[in-house]
Amino acid sequence: MTTSFHGIVPPIVTPLTAEGEVDLPSLERLTRHLVDAGVHGIFVLGSTGEVAYLTDAQRELVVRTVATAVGGRVPVMAGVIDLTTARVAEQVRAVVAAGADAVVATAPIYAINDTAEIEQHFRAVAAASEVPVLAYDIPVRVKTKLPADLLVKLGSEGVLAGVKDSSGDDVGFRRLVAANAAAGSPLALFTGHEVVVDGMLLLGADGVVPGLGNVDAAGYVRLWDLARAGDWAGARAEQDRLARLFEIVFQAAGRSGDAAGVGSFKVAIQRQGLIDTATMAFPVQALDGEVAERIESIVRDAGLLPVAAR
Amino acid sequence: MTTSFHGIVPPIVTPLTAEGEVDLPSLERLTRHLVDAGVHGIFVLGSTGEVAYLTDAQRELVVRTVATAVGGRVPVMAGVIDLTTARVAEQVRAVVAAGADAVVATAPIYAINDTAEIEQHFRAVAAASEVPVLAYDIPVRVKTKLPADLLVKLGSEGVLAGVKDSSGDDVGFRRLVAANAAAGSPLALFTGHEVVVDGMLLLGADGVVPGLGNVDAAGYVRLWDLARAGDWAGARAEQDRLARLFEIVFQAAGRSGDAAGVGSFKVAIQRQGLIDTATMAFPVQALDGEVAERIESIVRDAGLLPVAAR
Amino acid sequence: MTTSFHGIVPPIVTPLTAEGEVDLPSLERLTRHLVDAGVHGIFVLGSTGEVAYLTDAQRELVVRTVATAVGGRVPVMAGVIDLTTARVAEQVRAVVAAGADAVVATAPIYAINDTAEIEQHFRAVAAASEVPVLAYDIPVRVKTKLPADLLVKLGSEGVLAGVKDSSGDDVGFRRLVAANAAAGSPLALFTGHEVVVDGMLLLGADGVVPGLGNVDAAGYVRLWDLARAGDWAGARAEQDRLARLFEIVFQAAGRSGDAAGVGSFKVAIQRQGLIDTATMAFPVQALDGEVAERIESIVRDAGLLPVAAR
Amino acid sequence: MTTSFHGIVPPIVTPLTAEGEVDLPSLERLTRHLVDAGVHGIFVLGSTGEVAYLTDAQRELVVRTVATAVGGRVPVMAGVIDLTTARVAEQVRAVVAAGADAVVATAPIYAINDTAEIEQHFRAVAAASEVPVLAYDIPVRVKTKLPADLLVKLGSEGVLAGVKDSSGDDVGFRRLVAANAAAGSPLALFTGHEVVVDGMLLLGADGVVPGLGNVDAAGYVRLWDLARAGDWAGARAEQDRLARLFEIVFQAAGRSGDAAGVGSFKVAIQRQGLIDTATMAFPVQALDGEVAERIESIVRDAGLLPVAAR
Repeated sequence: MTTSFHGIVPPIVTPLTAEGEVDLPSLERLTRHLVDAGVHGIFVLGSTGEVAYLTDAQRELVVRTVATAVGGRVPVMAGVIDLTTARVAEQVRAVVAAGADAVVATAPIYAINDTAEIEQHFRAVAAASEVPVLAYDIPVRVKTKLPADLLVKLGSEGVLAGVKDSSGDDVGFRRLVAANAAAGSPLALFTGHEVVVDGMLLLGADGVVPGLGNVDAAGYVRLWDLARAGDWAGARAEQDRLARLFEIVFQAAGRSGDAAGVGSFKVAIQRQGLIDTATMAFPVQALDGEVAERIESIVRDAGLLPVAAR
Repeated sequence: MTTSFHGIVPPIVTPLTAEGEVDLPSLERLTRHLVDAGVHGIFVLGSTGEVAYLTDAQRELVVRTVATAVGGRVPVMAGVIDLTTARVAEQVRAVVAAGADAVVATAPIYAINDTAEIEQHFRAVAAASEVPVLAYDIPVRVKTKLPADLLVKLGSEGVLAGVKDSSGDDVGFRRLVAANAAAGSPLALFTGHEVVVDGMLLLGADGVVPGLGNVDAAGYVRLWDLARAGDWAGARAEQDRLARLFEIVFQAAGRSGDAAGVGSFKVAIQRQGLIDTATMAFPVQALDGEVAERIESIVRDAGLLPVAAR
Repeated sequence: MTTSFHGIVPPIVTPLTAEGEVDLPSLERLTRHLVDAGVHGIFVLGSTGEVAYLTDAQRELVVRTVATAVGGRVPVMAGVIDLTTARVAEQVRAVVAAGADAVVATAPIYAINDTAEIEQHFRAVAAASEVPVLAYDIPVRVKTKLPADLLVKLGSEGVLAGVKDSSGDDVGFRRLVAANAAAGSPLALFTGHEVVVDGMLLLGADGVVPGLGNVDAAGYVRLWDLARAGDWAGARAEQDRLARLFEIVFQAAGRSGDAAGVGSFKVAIQRQGLIDTATMAFPVQALDGEVAERIESIVRDAGLLPVAAR
Repeated sequence: MTTSFHGIVPPIVTPLTAEGEVDLPSLERLTRHLVDAGVHGIFVLGSTGEVAYLTDAQRELVVRTVATAVGGRVPVMAGVIDLTTARVAEQVRAVVAAGADAVVATAPIYAINDTAEIEQHFRAVAAASEVPVLAYDIPVRVKTKLPADLLVKLGSEGVLAGVKDSSGDDVGFRRLVAANAAAGSPLALFTGHEVVVDGMLLLGADGVVPGLGNVDAAGYVRLWDLARAGDWAGARAEQDRLARLFEIVFQAAGRSGDAAGVGSFKVAIQRQGLIDTATMAFPVQALDGEVAERIESIVRDAGLLPVAAR
């Protein structure tokens, strides 16, 4: 295992059985598939992992299963999404005990806090953690945009080891990259936006947490390698292909954000045989019917399914 | 105890010791004070009760302490704020075991769901509950505005017993009142907006959950009685007085919503001797200094503090 | 003409011919109908009057036609919606020349200004106006919520004569009412929310600008008279009836806000014979077909159409 | 003049005299400076040009002055920001008469329209225009995000010639680039976000409309040339330098968006001697004092001011 966080770190989906329990064989299979594809880490219990829908027992099972399947080949980061600092600290203890190499924490949710309060929250979470803590910036769910100044300050003091930016604010992300570089790069900076990875790597992102990486991990690894090699035209071409694949998330018009997004990833990887069902956590219904057919068709066009299988 | 939900139901604050633990004597004292003032119910573990900051153990303690202090004189409703349906159901079991007469549940938080998914969530929460379930509509924290159609449908089917509306959308509230009346009034409808209570009672609200009721419960009970008696001019005069008192929440300019709002309530009732400290839950700092002085001055002007005490 | 602004002041729709020109005979007829129904003023060129879609020539025609038809029986307020202070000042001169007794101005639109800049804007508009200026608070269109402090300050200095509040923030409106009263009531305060008029009058609104007043002016006048007489139960009953009528704006699901709202008013008054067509300003298509039938049915249920006519 | 729109197209500021009139000599000087620096077009009357604050007479003066100073060396695009389709069409006629080679139009402002209505608006504006029409996507001012599907459809039909994207939604921008490419690239696609230009050019943007290009046009031209040459590492280095310069817009904390943004550009170019004053349009006050000193210092650090001048 390395403590250096970088590269392609898919936020792994949580495969479920038809009854809604964690499907351990599918989770193991998907984990091995991702690691074999060359990813540089696995992020469990993120929004794509349906963390908000899982019980503590299910969360523990997910981390343990993935950590075991990974076997130390790459770092396992675990989301510790919960209400209140004390509960987040408890999640930290649980996921570390289950094998996580790092944790990813948001600002407080439900509560309405200011920057000073959020800073104290992160300090307390870090104090409770034996492993590195990354901040998870996802205003669409948490309502708060984490300020770049705060993040870099906490990075410089060793409180935070990195940031997963899912804010959709790429201007803000560049400002964060610049401020981090000016401070000696204490933070590992990940973007969560899977269709602008070429540009984000060009401007200095340390890595990516692409939900779509569940569907085409090898593509993202190629994109990473091309960027590392300075072949930006090649990187862009690979990104363009992945951007076409990303259209799967726009097929379920009228469904909820979680159903359309995570739901499309699950259909796409189920059709590839990587997981057994596309079941979503209660109360979300899996995508099926014509929508699922359209998703399969896009996946096929991306070269991820055998032509004969249709 | 009555199962009929109506009237003034303050969302009781959670008094804390200087160390941040639940201050049980203060909580008992405040509870008895509210019941003695004539309130028609107590809402524990709401946003004003800092529910988002409390551990499960603290939550259990709060419900048990308030239920015991109330002694069945009025119903105790308990917030069951948590991530995911399964966890909310677990909160339901815990607060009912601790003595709650009803539970108050939000739509899923952090998750991004649509109306159909939210409906299934409430159905599952209700199925897991032995006591009546009220829906808590608070988009500023949950991001979702609950549709009136869904609420009335779930009321008519016996899934929901009422709604606590903290949406700030009074046009929507009137539409809800009208739709509920047309359906035979299956829902008890509470507004959470403490400065428009006269108007909301006039248009048909069944009750109020006023955070400011912690500070002046007797005033809200008078307002309720005047409205019940059809003395709307008197009701408005009382509401005007309470609206002036509500200015305490605007004193801490620049502080977070929770610090300025709940924090001002805590200062105001601490100065009245009803609780021992104005301590806020970590990571929120209590209001103090000049801000606390201004709050005290407003409380005094409202006739809630002896002049000589200054 | 009176300079005292109060009571029921419908934001009159702008009837259009099938070709999209201002339909002067219909506009005269509707104006006389409203004044005969007992309204206390007419607000021309508001959002309901489709001001944003009209040319300067059309605006001038609207004001002149309404002012002439009113004949000084009640005041005519005119919206002066435009980009930039200088243009708004030009609109002021034009509508006053055309017969307006007062003007209604928003904060700058498109521009991104702060409170100090907005204050200077209103001061300059007032300096350019021979007639009283009311502020129009409509954040859904202008993006800015006007602060109560600023409004009362400008009222006290004689810059503003009143406020039309279409912000949907009734807590804010009560704070404004209270601050205005504390300052000696320099401002005439109007709410734009037609389904909470009983409550808003109870808490101290000076008047209402109800779009639905185009459809049932007599109902709003009755509501006003009942409230003035202190018959709040009667006021509420009338408001309940009007709230049922307001359901017409929710019939055109999936259409734009302007099409569904103003469009439903136009259908409802066209079916009453008050205007000739329900034509909307380009590029908005009039409501028709099944949607228009549902609107007519609601209007009929409200007693505003003869039963035999169906 | 070329009708091919691409490259670096600064949205030129509108220099004003101390009295608030358009400063023609400064405008000419700045225009020539930009063209001499190698920009590929000039965008007049954009948000950065304070279009929302200018009268029609001032707008005409600006277009005529810039068009004359440019002398056909590069295309001049002109914003036609106004209420209602008919007024926008009138703006089109005015700016074309004054010398504009293309116009840039937003969706309707103030009005609340849906996609079908916005489509008709653009069709009508294009029908009224002798020159190419570009769509201006700036939701922070117009409230509407233009859908990629609509834009590409209107491009394919020859209604629109391009898009200026100031939406801040870079994921959406990539989807637009991809959809445009799939349709045969009918649209010229410009990003308005000056600190992610390297990434946006990499992913396929046809050009940039950088407000900061007023301050360092040569830098953006270098960035463009490096990107065209495939020297992405060089492009990134240049972008990093420009991103540091962009910090000037964050110096006026607490001021309005227009004051802080456009105001900082004006200070930066006034200090370079390109315009005579940093005066902002009424009611915005120019930045000065310590804020202006910090801006000058950043400009100096970027190598845009002589060291000795301090």
